[in-house]
Amino acid sequence: MAPRPLEGLIQALRCLPGVGPKSAQRMAYHLLQHDRKGAEMLAAALGHALQDLLRCQRCNTFSEKEVCERCQSPRRDPTLLCVVETPVDLNMMEQTLAYQGLYYVLMGRISPLDGHGPRQLGLEHLMARALDGVVEEVILATNYTNEGEATAHYISSLLAEKGLKVSRLARGVPVGGELEFVDSGTLAQAFRERRAVMK
Amino acid sequence: MAPRPLEGLIQALRCLPGVGPKSAQRMAYHLLQHDRKGAEMLAAALGHALQDLLRCQRCNTFSEKEVCERCQSPRRDPTLLCVVETPVDLNMMEQTLAYQGLYYVLMGRISPLDGHGPRQLGLEHLMARALDGVVEEVILATNYTNEGEATAHYISSLLAEKGLKVSRLARGVPVGGELEFVDSGTLAQAFRERRAVMK
Repeated sequence: MAPRPLEGLIQALRCLPGVGPKSAQRMAYHLLQHDRKGAEMLAAALGHALQDLLRCQRCNTFSEKEVCERCQSPRRDPTLLCVVETPVDLNMMEQTLAYQGLYYVLMGRISPLDGHGPRQLGLEHLMARALDGVVEEVILATNYTNEGEATAHYISSLLAEKGLKVSRLARGVPVGGELEFVDSGTLAQAFRERRAVMK
Repeated sequence: MAPRPLEGLIQALRCLPGVGPKSAQRMAYHLLQHDRKGAEMLAAALGHALQDLLRCQRCNTFSEKEVCERCQSPRRDPTLLCVVETPVDLNMMEQTLAYQGLYYVLMGRISPLDGHGPRQLGLEHLMARALDGVVEEVILATNYTNEGEATAHYISSLLAEKGLKVSRLARGVPVGGELEFVDSGTLAQAFRERRAVMK
């Protein structure tokens, strides 16, 4: 019913995660009516990103160079390797300013229901990276979801064979969290992993 | 921190309505990781829509031709002209299958707070369209928001001077609506505009 180029744009916008038919329609009309400049810039940015972004050969995240700046930085501790699921998780870790080691970005997780097994994740690449002789500890910072836990479990079993130290982020009550609003699973975990005060 | 083409894509995605920094980041990673084909198609669709879509000279909506198919259709009643704010509203009206007349799409509303006055709406174009000598009734189907009401009021005052019949969509309890869940403003309006049964 809508003219073809408009229908095409609405369909194409649906490739964005979380965008259904209604949102796609709203976005298309917004761009065409109120932000043609933004639409032009978006088209250009898509092309630019598709063409110019590589994967860092060491940490596997998006990079303009073959090895990203973080992996090249001499100010990073190369004995620590933190494994995260996505670049977004990496950014979250960086924002804490609590970690000075390096990263490996899985770009996914083991999720049999979606057909993502260990092979699809390319874990050989992670193994080669972790066994470079410099890394001493691998910190598994995958999500605490079923898939994230399974991924961490699988990776830790691979790494333990090789004699590397493997750790996982602590679980417990969030900083500033009120016990009243913490879910019982987290609270149970916080009980089990309680720490001695003034050790 | 992110490589420049990635940062550029994240920024560009924010021109979409309802997309903040977090969603833009998620969308960018999704496209680059999981849907490069979709990203290519989106870039092409944006270019195509920007280049090929015109405004219909009669109803003002997006069209591939100078006069859209609906305005050219001989099966439409040219004596009725329904004024809506946006192409989305037009689609909603069409889905009812209850209307066989023609449309005029304002592509906006009077909204002084946003700097949209009668001039920005291009109401002369609507006037010329409504006074073509064929239109007998103008149905104002702008939203029942403050801005939509103001727009309808303004247009009706312009049209009344010219001796055209002007109507507005009925307000009342929604079909299938339970009175318990209808807001009191709507209910009050439904009282005021009550109809005789078996007239």
